[in-house]
Amino acid sequence: MRKQITLKTDKLFTDLTDEIVSFASEWGHSGLVNIFSPHTTCAVWLTEDEVLHHADIRFFLDSMAPQFKDPEGNQKNIKYLHDLISLRNDVPADERINGHSHIRYLFFNSSETIPIENGKLILGEWKRIFAVELDPVRERKLVCSLIKE
Amino acid sequence: MRKQITLKTDKLFTDLTDEIVSFASEWGHSGLVNIFSPHTTCAVWLTEDEVLHHADIRFFLDSMAPQFKDPEGNQKNIKYLHDLISLRNDVPADERINGHSHIRYLFFNSSETIPIENGKLILGEWKRIFAVELDPVRERKLVCSLIKE
Amino acid sequence: MRKQITLKTDKLFTDLTDEIVSFASEWGHSGLVNIFSPHTTCAVWLTEDEVLHHADIRFFLDSMAPQFKDPEGNQKNIKYLHDLISLRNDVPADERINGHSHIRYLFFNSSETIPIENGKLILGEWKRIFAVELDPVRERKLVCSLIKE
Repeated sequence: MRKQITLKTDKLFTDLTDEIVSFASEWGHSGLVNIFSPHTTCAVWLTEDEVLHHADIRFFLDSMAPQFKDPEGNQKNIKYLHDLISLRNDVPADERINGHSHIRYLFFNSSETIPIENGKLILGEWKRIFAVELDPVRERKLVCSLIKE
Repeated sequence: MRKQITLKTDKLFTDLTDEIVSFASEWGHSGLVNIFSPHTTCAVWLTEDEVLHHADIRFFLDSMAPQFKDPEGNQKNIKYLHDLISLRNDVPADERINGHSHIRYLFFNSSETIPIENGKLILGEWKRIFAVELDPVRERKLVCSLIKE
Repeated sequence: MRKQITLKTDKLFTDLTDEIVSFASEWGHSGLVNIFSPHTTCAVWLTEDEVLHHADIRFFLDSMAPQFKDPEGNQKNIKYLHDLISLRNDVPADERINGHSHIRYLFFNSSETIPIENGKLILGEWKRIFAVELDPVRERKLVCSLIKE
């Protein structure tokens, strides 16, 4: 059984837990749920729902893979080769300057897999399921798949 | 088929391989095994069982996400916002000062999935399955799920 | 259903997408595909097929986990304890000096799991499936497993 989750990501972490818990509950079986992001700058991650922890992650990413701007303050990332658009083929007209987002992706996952027992996720007391948006606000479509034991 | 693995983590890497190999062997089928941690500061990771490599990882984590202490040597982490407990709601009385553990989690996974052929893990010559403890000694419960092909 | 993928990795990213897309297409069902690496210094990762982005990742890894050489230019890594071979037991005669490769592994995964709908991978517009080689050229064998919904 499979479901697409459509969301508008307006912050680093968007909590998907309730929607996935409901989907598994309707299903009612035991097995695994896999939540997959088909996007290259929107990941899936499990962590605590605590805003100061999320701020720690944001500062950590800013320090590990900073986004540089030019002195005039325009968004022009001069550190990442991926952003030298004039060297690339077949670049879409609306291509984003987001080399740093692609590097930040290395800290997260394309998907997470979680065990389900009789329709109930075994997620632990503090873990929640998040879409991690590494670009500014975007429309994203994730894929939630249920696999029977 | 599913099994809970209870362990007391008294070091960074605790080897779970033998227990999971036995469980898959009893099962005897082909498919996948998923080892999941429901904890936010205990991860799952596959790597070589070599103590100097584990020390390299420890030094790497110490450098990437250091744990700061106050000058008196008490464990008081002043670098992570997550540790400003007075700003948070609903904090348990025994809350740990572990903002750094949560950041270190970014280098590992909540679960690992490994192929099984006729009850035998295809894990490779050097790979072993570890619980990664990012806090001091704790009791942990991981979930090991077997999924038929 | 399962398949071994044999490859000679002569660069950081080797694209496996076409082979896995064909395998899933022959299968024709819905479920998940898991691509697993049994190697400790060859990972699996999903990202864009864009050479400048791959160069960004290479520079990032060089900066996060540098490989040091001795002044004579011989490959002798002095930074990683894992490379102090004289302290280790049971080291194979052809052991590589690759402590840095093991640390770089922390940024990638041992496996990736991708949803399949009627034999077609739901991979997204830009995502591709890569073997990530953290050592110099090697022969590698990855495992591709298909699991029915």
